[in-house]
Amino acid sequence: MSHPSAYQALCSSFTRLYRYEHLSAMVSWDQATMMPSKGNEARAAAQAELDVLMHACLTAPVLAEQLQQAEQENLNALENANLREMRRAWQQANLLPAALVEAQSLAGARCEHAWRSQRPANDWAGFLENFREVVRLSRQEARLLAEAQGGSPYDALMNKYEPGMRSADIDRIFADVKQWLPGLIGAVREKQAGQALQLPQGSFPVERQRQLGVAVMQLLGFDFDAGRLDVSVHPFCGGVAEDVRITTRYREDDFMQSLMGIIHETGHARYEQGLPRELLHLPVGRARSMGIHESQSLSFEMQLGRHPAFLSLIAPLIGQHLGEQAAFSPDNLALLYSRVYPSTIRVDADELCYPAHIILRYEIEKALIEGDIEAEDIPALWDDKMQAYLGVDTRGNYRQGCLQDIHWTDGSFGYFPSYTLGAMYAAQYFARMRRDTPDLDQRIANGDLSVVFDWLQRHIWSQASLHDTADLLRQATGETLNPQYFQAHLQSRYLA
Amino acid sequence: MSHPSAYQALCSSFTRLYRYEHLSAMVSWDQATMMPSKGNEARAAAQAELDVLMHACLTAPVLAEQLQQAEQENLNALENANLREMRRAWQQANLLPAALVEAQSLAGARCEHAWRSQRPANDWAGFLENFREVVRLSRQEARLLAEAQGGSPYDALMNKYEPGMRSADIDRIFADVKQWLPGLIGAVREKQAGQALQLPQGSFPVERQRQLGVAVMQLLGFDFDAGRLDVSVHPFCGGVAEDVRITTRYREDDFMQSLMGIIHETGHARYEQGLPRELLHLPVGRARSMGIHESQSLSFEMQLGRHPAFLSLIAPLIGQHLGEQAAFSPDNLALLYSRVYPSTIRVDADELCYPAHIILRYEIEKALIEGDIEAEDIPALWDDKMQAYLGVDTRGNYRQGCLQDIHWTDGSFGYFPSYTLGAMYAAQYFARMRRDTPDLDQRIANGDLSVVFDWLQRHIWSQASLHDTADLLRQATGETLNPQYFQAHLQSRYLA
Repeated sequence: MSHPSAYQALCSSFTRLYRYEHLSAMVSWDQATMMPSKGNEARAAAQAELDVLMHACLTAPVLAEQLQQAEQENLNALENANLREMRRAWQQANLLPAALVEAQSLAGARCEHAWRSQRPANDWAGFLENFREVVRLSRQEARLLAEAQGGSPYDALMNKYEPGMRSADIDRIFADVKQWLPGLIGAVREKQAGQALQLPQGSFPVERQRQLGVAVMQLLGFDFDAGRLDVSVHPFCGGVAEDVRITTRYREDDFMQSLMGIIHETGHARYEQGLPRELLHLPVGRARSMGIHESQSLSFEMQLGRHPAFLSLIAPLIGQHLGEQAAFSPDNLALLYSRVYPSTIRVDADELCYPAHIILRYEIEKALIEGDIEAEDIPALWDDKMQAYLGVDTRGNYRQGCLQDIHWTDGSFGYFPSYTLGAMYAAQYFARMRRDTPDLDQRIANGDLSVVFDWLQRHIWSQASLHDTADLLRQATGETLNPQYFQAHLQSRYLA
Repeated sequence: MSHPSAYQALCSSFTRLYRYEHLSAMVSWDQATMMPSKGNEARAAAQAELDVLMHACLTAPVLAEQLQQAEQENLNALENANLREMRRAWQQANLLPAALVEAQSLAGARCEHAWRSQRPANDWAGFLENFREVVRLSRQEARLLAEAQGGSPYDALMNKYEPGMRSADIDRIFADVKQWLPGLIGAVREKQAGQALQLPQGSFPVERQRQLGVAVMQLLGFDFDAGRLDVSVHPFCGGVAEDVRITTRYREDDFMQSLMGIIHETGHARYEQGLPRELLHLPVGRARSMGIHESQSLSFEMQLGRHPAFLSLIAPLIGQHLGEQAAFSPDNLALLYSRVYPSTIRVDADELCYPAHIILRYEIEKALIEGDIEAEDIPALWDDKMQAYLGVDTRGNYRQGCLQDIHWTDGSFGYFPSYTLGAMYAAQYFARMRRDTPDLDQRIANGDLSVVFDWLQRHIWSQASLHDTADLLRQATGETLNPQYFQAHLQSRYLA
């Protein structure tokens, strides 16, 4: 028997970690969907114990040694990619002192917990008391990560969600979007002002909505032998790649949000279900980044889901499950799902206004992490930017303003750009698909979605983390991120 | 800061283990109720990794040292009880060599897996091939445990499920039952032959049955903020004490089994929900034994659930949820739920025939473990005993004979007596309750179940593992196990 290589030893450790992550993902899903209230304390203790265990695995001193040794070993391309991802995971866990990680966890939990009642109470002053500490610790984290990895402090945080992306790139991309987006929104609003559209009438029983959701998921190729659809307060895609658990929430007076939410989460789910089975236990076999993950959900929700051809395809399903009515005609559904209406809340925003919400948050959180502003400066900046980008007044309305998102409460700075990067990647994929398959829209209308799924499977899902994001995009579309496709997509969909 | 005692160090280790057990219980429940088929492989790997981890915790060399040191420390009664239970858990994990544990796990999994198709195929010869190895390894386990703990090999296996019980006691108890049971069954059959009873008519939709089940669970005090009711192929009570997950299965043509199954599992659940919250993280705070656990489910199912007073209480609920019909009159429900009919299948057996099924299995498995018979002798013995105890012919019918139970397939020898011990304990509790509360039956009929719950809470649930089973019974009822209460209960219910 030959001595196992350092690389093989690393793979064993990461396989063990992958199994612990399975347990963690499942009990987290259960907590959000199934767990009764009195189970919470014991669950939190069990999850914390598991977190400690996983952290201990990733910070075992022997890993540092093995990572160094493995660099000297004769590895093939796949193994090198896997080694890169193992090193990345190791770095994220080892660059920060345990005391900082614990302080962040405590401060984040305290701030988030209080926020749950402070938001409805519109209590910015109360929030600020906890939030200052979250910001202080995140700045410390960003500085330490940046020292080790290079780039700016904000880059270092963004690196957790979209490795390799720099804020200098985002600045340039978002500056361009800010040039054309407000004008585009204005033009579309003007165009839509004269449109006659019919609102769906009636109450839509939850069970019928659920069955409609299942039918659409089946159309979208979700594998129900390898996943589930359930209900949670905040919809998400969880579970593990072998058993993907997506959730939604239902309102009996509005099926549209839930349906599109299901389509969105199904995009996340198919990415997971399409990852290479034989590599799942290794970091290289996992999803590339949060930006790429969002590009899958937005490929499904925005590129496909709100496309008139797709809406014409599912219109009969909607009628079949919810009862026929005039509002369910393909043309009217297309009008409903492309309605542009600037408002205060990001998660309710339409496709066109959404990037404005992201740019606003990006500019504020970057300045905050870089130390250019302080936490107390946020409301005034928020109000100014909402007015400038969307013409919406949020003064004094913290609840629907800077207190609306959960991300900042636990220090998840650097995540927001992933949403708009995802939307841009998705537009770029579909531009490429249309170039290769000029009759794409007709195929979609005919129910032949395989051309979309096959493309995503070949170029994104099967590629997992074999390449970095830039290479993944280049190999899939022929170029790195090019935001012009996003602009062209919006102009064509909303002004054509 | 004072140096933590060995006892405190042990408590920390067992608290960690308790949190790992939480994860294990939850993913096991998920596997049986929620998991789609393709999730199985990754789940099995994650569970196996967790098993390895828990076994490593329990076999850490430092525990042996700490257990010895703690014996010298100045502990109070509660701490001593906890130390006894920690030592017991440690022994179960440490007395057996790892190679044997692994061999048993593999042989058991292979035998059980094959059994799932061999049973429907009536393939005893095929089963025997795997089963011989299971028996061989269980004999080895029994011998090793007996050498360390004293008692016979079979005692050592039974000790896992009902600590302290000896087969000499069971022999005596069961010999007595065999004296009177066949005669009692005959007399009851004769009495019931002339009874006119009405069978429920119709199809009972699953959702209505579920709502009826929930209503009865609420009546029985199940805390839905600390547990759930779901569906699985084999009903069970799982989860953790803080979050108890019971399951049932529904047949649209028969609500009676599912309803009584829910009442049974609710008994298990209330035991868990009634354990002392502040001790749950320690072994002393957990359920006493499988026999005591069955005594709770059977207190609910047999003593309470099939009692005419209780059936009169739930008759209106049944009518309300399933639609009124003559068969749902209190008197007719009491006839239906006390029908005695010897048949081949243990899990379908009525209260009176059930002990015969257990005695048969006990006699066979004890002889098998002690080496008095071999695996191939089982069918002939089975046939003889079924004929002698129940007058039922099982010749050549392995499927409904010796292949019917899962217990032996993975080597769970020694469990079966727990069922009948549980029934006997339950009869003893209720005899004591009736002595203290002579109008018990009237109170039950009036819907005042608190006298039952309060008694069980005070004498059983809150006592967890503070005492051994004999002491628990003595403190609860004034005497140790006395099977005469069981006989008296059956005679009174079925012949009065």
